[in-house]
This record gives sequence, C-alpha cells and structure tokens, in this order.
Amino acid sequence: MKNMKMILQYDGSRYQGWQRLGDSDRTIQGKIEKVLSVMTGEDIEVIGSGRTDAGVHAIRQVANFHTESSMVPEAMLDYCYRYLPEDIVVLDMQEVDKMFHSRYNAKAKKYLYRIWNDRFHNPFYRKYACHIPNCLDIDSMRQAARFLIGEHDYTSFTTLKSKKKSKVRRVYSIDIEIKDKIIDIIFYGNGFLYNMVRIMTGTLIEVGLGKISPDAMENILSGKDRSLAGYTAPSNGLFLYEVEY
Amino acid sequence: MKNMKMILQYDGSRYQGWQRLGDSDRTIQGKIEKVLSVMTGEDIEVIGSGRTDAGVHAIRQVANFHTESSMVPEAMLDYCYRYLPEDIVVLDMQEVDKMFHSRYNAKAKKYLYRIWNDRFHNPFYRKYACHIPNCLDIDSMRQAARFLIGEHDYTSFTTLKSKKKSKVRRVYSIDIEIKDKIIDIIFYGNGFLYNMVRIMTGTLIEVGLGKISPDAMENILSGKDRSLAGYTAPSNGLFLYEVEY
Repeated sequence: MKNMKMILQYDGSRYQGWQRLGDSDRTIQGKIEKVLSVMTGEDIEVIGSGRTDAGVHAIRQVANFHTESSMVPEAMLDYCYRYLPEDIVVLDMQEVDKMFHSRYNAKAKKYLYRIWNDRFHNPFYRKYACHIPNCLDIDSMRQAARFLIGEHDYTSFTTLKSKKKSKVRRVYSIDIEIKDKIIDIIFYGNGFLYNMVRIMTGTLIEVGLGKISPDAMENILSGKDRSLAGYTAPSNGLFLYEVEY
Repeated sequence: MKNMKMILQYDGSRYQGWQRLGDSDRTIQGKIEKVLSVMTGEDIEVIGSGRTDAGVHAIRQVANFHTESSMVPEAMLDYCYRYLPEDIVVLDMQEVDKMFHSRYNAKAKKYLYRIWNDRFHNPFYRKYACHIPNCLDIDSMRQAARFLIGEHDYTSFTTLKSKKKSKVRRVYSIDIEIKDKIIDIIFYGNGFLYNMVRIMTGTLIEVGLGKISPDAMENILSGKDRSLAGYTAPSNGLFLYEVEY
C-alpha cells in the first residue's frame, strides 16, 4: 500500500467547501476522490490538512491518500490535470512514508486574507478579495493584530461550540501588507479554530474602520465570548496559503 | 445637451465583446446603454474608444454619451454602480466638451497581454491570462518585439480584410515584464488594427517557443500577409489598459 501526498490549488468559488457531503459533487474533496477512484479503480479516500469553507480558496492545500496502484506519481499528476475541473489543480504528487497523515502531522499553517480597499469593487477580484469601500486605518489594525499573536484561548474568535476541545492555539505572526488598493493579511500559526481567521479578519477590519479600538483586543480575547469580537469576514477573500509539516 | 465621459473597467469573460449586437444583452455596450437609458429616460448611445472582442477585459476603457439629464456625475456614478452587473464598473464620470469623441479623439492606447507560464494552469488566472506550459525564451521575444516597434504597415498582423483603409500604425513600445510565472506584454501605440495585439502576442509566443526566429519578424512585416505571422493568442489574456487623449 502506497501513501501519496498531494499539493492542491483551487478556486473555491463554485464549491460548498473542502469536505465531501454525502454524494454531493460540489465539494473539493468529492471531486478529487472521484477522479482518483476512477484512476486507480479503488475506492479512494482523500485526507486533507483541514477543511476549507464554502467559497474559500487554496494556494497550497495538502492532502494524502492510500492506494495499491502501480502508476508512477508523474502519471497520476497528468491524469489529475486532465480530468479535474479547471478550478482544481494538483500541483505536486509524491509517495511518502506510510505513517504520514495530512491533518495529524500538520505543524503550522499560513492563511492569506485579501481585501480590496477602494470605493468600487474590482471586477477581477470580486471572487478573490473582500471589498471594503471605506478607508482603513492600517496602523490601528497592526496595533490590534499584535494582541492576537502568542498562545491564547481563542474562544472569542470561533463559532465552534464544542466545550470539550481546547481552544488554545499559538499564532506566530499576523502581517499586514499593502500594495496599492490591496491589503493582504497573512496569518501564521500552529492551528486555527473553525472560522478563526475570518473572525480575526472581521475584527481587524472593524478596528480599521474605527468601530473597535486596538486596545479592546485584550478584553475580547480574555472574555472568551464570540459576541465580543467583530463580524465574520466573507469567505471569498480567504486563501489557505501553506501547510507545514 | 451634455457630453459625459466615462472610465470603465470590466471582466469580459461572460460577454460577446464590447459592441452591441442587435438586442443582445451579452455585450458590454448593450449592458451600459440599458442602464443609462433607464437612468436618464432617454435612448442613450454609448461611444467606446474602440471595440474589445469576446472575452477581452478592460482596466480603463473610455466611452462617452450625450444626455439632457440634470443628474450630477456623482449620482450617475452611484446609479451605474448599483445597477450594472458586478463584472462591469464605471470608475469615473465627468462632463466634458461637447466635441469630445471617445473614438475619434483617442491619440494612443495601451494593451496588456498576460501569460501564465508554468506547467499547469493557475485556477485564479484561468480567465485572466493565457496559459503557456512550455518554457519561453524571453530574450528572443524581446529581440523580436524590437522589430515591431515604429511606424509600419501591419497587414500581416490583422485579420481585417478591407483593402481601402490604411494598415499603417505606429507602435511606441512593447515591454515584456516577468514576475515569477507571469509574463506581461505591454503594447503602446497610436492605434491597433483588428486582432493586432493578439496576433503580435501569438507571434512573440512562437518566437519564445523557438518556432519563429526573432530575425524573421522583418520579413513577416514586409510580406504584408497574415499567414506569415504566428497564431492569434486567445482573448482571455488581453486587457485594454489605457486610452490617451
């Protein structure tokens, strides 16, 4: 039995997200499993490094699957390129150690949240950035972001209700880069809770708009209450950027 | 009677091009005229700086129209933003001299042709760049481009059949910029014939692939025969970048 590791890139606009939903064909996982199952003649299950929500994109998602197929990785890559829809591309395919697990072994992740900050939306970015027409105070956003770095209980920044699982994560850095009218926020951490990047982004946007003061971040974090944080920024601006092992 | 000048941005993917075709709703001109006609209660005709083909995009297209409307330009801008589809945006609206004509007064134009040069296509650029999987020799392309600069009869680079009209144009510059896997070719000239930018691009791509030698450009130009030049590069990589008056 071989264990194959893939690097995937996808435009999530048309999909209900990563995770397969029954026999639905509108998920990334579902699309890939279908192609790999036909390719190998086996019933392939693909393990992703994590789920991405409906509309969320990936620059370099990681996934793995087990197969008895004798096909070489290069041929698998070509097969996937030929049969996957054009908004999903397998960039790399390699045989890895039998024990490798895309989700359990992930040590850190990077997400990119892209904002288009101009009066009118940009027709070319309407699916790949969140449009904020108002002026954003970037200094305040950077100040606020500093409070979110470190090891914290991020209960205020998730919509996951489960009380059993730890909400403690470590965020290594949050970088805010401006290129003309594009604001890129890059989140880097050892793991992110459900909706955490989108709620952190929504909160930073509200700071940028002057609705939340940067200093309020401390209380938002320590309050451990979702209602204290800002809104959930829309999915179209979010990209899973990289997964580290 | 007021003469209004507009700056337009559009994603041409869904459209049959700029020029209105009968009562078709699948053209940029048609969409804009419909919105402006409802806005003013008049039968508005929009004059564009030039046509863009099916699938071609615009960063800053220029157009003008005449109206008796007393609406201020800012209100017109807001109205267009609200009622145009999200892949067409009016970026600017100003009253100009009665004599201004978007097409007749255009002095120069800039086009951008974007190539995604990597083994696999990029899901985020599939509508906004032409995918060339093979390695391109940029030095040869730049060498070939130099022959296309200047005042020439560009008969070899157009599919326009009319023999009456002059095919002489002046190309000021052709710049080839590389950013990672993106190759941008920027064409700047006093006017471009039908399909001229796409045929020049297709020819430069064939030079980059080693199918045409850079030195052959001189004979392709002087031969005044479309069959001598390279293929017509696809419309999805082409952007009308700017119009000068």
